[in-house]
Amino acid sequence: MSLPSLRLKSNSDRRIKAGHLWVFSNEVDTAQTPLTLFEPGQEVSLETASGKSLGLACVSPNNLICARLHSRDSKHRLDKSLLVHRIKVALSLRERLFDQPFYRLVYGDSDLLPGLVVDRFGDYLVVQIGTPGMERVREAIVEALVQVLKPAGILFKNDSGARAQEDLPSYVEAAHGEVPERVALIENGVRFEAPVWTGQKTGWFYDHRMNRARLAPYVKGKRVLDLFSYIGGWGVQAAAFGASEVMCVDISAPALDQVEHNAELNGVAEKMAVVEGNVLDALRELKAADERFDVVIADPPAFIKKRKDIRNGEQAYRRLNEQAMRMLNKDGILVSASCSMHLAEDNLRDILNASARHLDRHLVITERGFQGPDHPLHPAIPETGYIKSLFCRVLPV
Amino acid sequence: MSLPSLRLKSNSDRRIKAGHLWVFSNEVDTAQTPLTLFEPGQEVSLETASGKSLGLACVSPNNLICARLHSRDSKHRLDKSLLVHRIKVALSLRERLFDQPFYRLVYGDSDLLPGLVVDRFGDYLVVQIGTPGMERVREAIVEALVQVLKPAGILFKNDSGARAQEDLPSYVEAAHGEVPERVALIENGVRFEAPVWTGQKTGWFYDHRMNRARLAPYVKGKRVLDLFSYIGGWGVQAAAFGASEVMCVDISAPALDQVEHNAELNGVAEKMAVVEGNVLDALRELKAADERFDVVIADPPAFIKKRKDIRNGEQAYRRLNEQAMRMLNKDGILVSASCSMHLAEDNLRDILNASARHLDRHLVITERGFQGPDHPLHPAIPETGYIKSLFCRVLPV
Repeated sequence: MSLPSLRLKSNSDRRIKAGHLWVFSNEVDTAQTPLTLFEPGQEVSLETASGKSLGLACVSPNNLICARLHSRDSKHRLDKSLLVHRIKVALSLRERLFDQPFYRLVYGDSDLLPGLVVDRFGDYLVVQIGTPGMERVREAIVEALVQVLKPAGILFKNDSGARAQEDLPSYVEAAHGEVPERVALIENGVRFEAPVWTGQKTGWFYDHRMNRARLAPYVKGKRVLDLFSYIGGWGVQAAAFGASEVMCVDISAPALDQVEHNAELNGVAEKMAVVEGNVLDALRELKAADERFDVVIADPPAFIKKRKDIRNGEQAYRRLNEQAMRMLNKDGILVSASCSMHLAEDNLRDILNASARHLDRHLVITERGFQGPDHPLHPAIPETGYIKSLFCRVLPV
Repeated sequence: MSLPSLRLKSNSDRRIKAGHLWVFSNEVDTAQTPLTLFEPGQEVSLETASGKSLGLACVSPNNLICARLHSRDSKHRLDKSLLVHRIKVALSLRERLFDQPFYRLVYGDSDLLPGLVVDRFGDYLVVQIGTPGMERVREAIVEALVQVLKPAGILFKNDSGARAQEDLPSYVEAAHGEVPERVALIENGVRFEAPVWTGQKTGWFYDHRMNRARLAPYVKGKRVLDLFSYIGGWGVQAAAFGASEVMCVDISAPALDQVEHNAELNGVAEKMAVVEGNVLDALRELKAADERFDVVIADPPAFIKKRKDIRNGEQAYRRLNEQAMRMLNKDGILVSASCSMHLAEDNLRDILNASARHLDRHLVITERGFQGPDHPLHPAIPETGYIKSLFCRVLPV
């Protein structure tokens, strides 16, 4: 059974040939192959203007990114067999790099499975599907994961904003076995439980693992402030690494309850304090109360979700980082992180520099961190790189 | 005794106020303060066009970068007292981050000591001076280092190309105590001896420490090729981390002798082989002999020394990385490093992507590494960041 064609305009094949996997809707020769002809998620043969095959893709007829390539070989249909192969290749990298089964197992485009994310928590897998192409094969995804990993449970955490744009329904449901409310994980030797049904994204952010690992020598014996703490990824690790005291600030009461629980799991509850509230308000109150910290961690949610938010978003990063810097003792460390794909590392660096100059401090960057190796960067798709974390030493001039 | 003034043209103070420390010769109001009036290395009060002090700087009358700021406070003259203070501040960061006394102790601009580099090898210090300002206070530098660290020996390794541009003499001499031909160091738990009198730069490259540390999970049980090995910084560590076999290629016979010696220090000599010769020639011969490796490390000397070399240099990186990629087994790792300040990480990434596409491979980047925290980045001076290392997984498509 041969697949229908999706034909590109002339020269629109260049980016694909250079390694990219996405087709934009204005690149399609809609006179020859109207996008309206395709079902959401339908598999097609992607062709150049002259009819040469570029590989296989799935169509998102209503999206600006209207197709994503999953194979450059037209024999490799998106089915259970290809999924098993790709998952095994992805797994072999993670098994080589990590001693324990806690990691992002599948990272979309970089693992040649566009639209699919799988986080592994030991025997439990949390799956996020972001495209109609992957939604169409969701049963095959479950079968492939069961075949390769024999998990105790698989959860579909299919409630992202990206799905709404694809007209995909929002749902969270167990697709295999039983999945408890909270699952255990170990990161950098520190124990956590993550609320996979109700938490942010898959319930945990493996992307900052390597950056959190670098905290150890900076926090030993120090007083630490963790802003936007969520369930304590940074803060509890800081306490476990030997911080004398850690304060976590977050607007979510359930997240802070989980901070306390995670602290208990590591025997560091007596060093932790939590503050519920808006971070900028909390910073103002802490400043007024003359509180100071040796290390401040600012890892906010993405302030820049779309290109049009860049200007306002940069101002928000500036405001946050400058206020955070004011909370530091004389020779302090600011850990400034961003998960906004649209905020380049250079821009974050400039924001930190401007804040330091404004406060008349000498700031140098000691660590430049990115997402860990279970979130590989696809070199032709800059969007696959989004995490940055800059460790700054802030001194008087 | 008040210092002479060096006056900037109007608006030429902006970059300095934004955090930069360098003054370019075309920014000076030479009608008011001709550069020819100053002795090389003379200390001056840097002033805005309206006569407001910006701090203290030392003049390099014959250089494009004609002055470098060492203090924004006009009371802080460049003397032993300031050197002691700055060295203590620099030392406190390194002592916090490293368990053992092997690191770059002073990194020029980032430690507010422009023109001065000090590498520490336990009881021995290797000093590089790059500006007439620092050359003028070389005795005070030695006194300050002796006061703070009480080293057994201090070596001036003052033979860099940058010195010739400053009309500074080239010399290598012990400035304090006795300095042996080779000094011991430990990096990532692996023992080395570095030829500080005769080797490249200070004899050792601490800048790649953190990147080499990341090798461990990638090389275990694998066959590794280390190109431009110098004295085995990458290769001997790969062997010590559990590689099954390591081949080091370098054009310098003394460097390869030192590779073998360093391998012996760690009991891994039987796993090491060395090949003396031009790297591209060696790659051709290895390819012809059908040799393949699981991990190839390509960390060449800077192919781009000046802006005008960018085009040729990028071609050289492309040629090297593509040949290196050809040597990989089916699921291989290419570690591609560059110390060219003028090659941005994005450009190296694009070169790797283009090479992979040309060879019809799927390449993803698992690690993005930079210089270690003993080489802090000054956020206003991009030139202080020069090292990058990309770990690439290279697969069939």
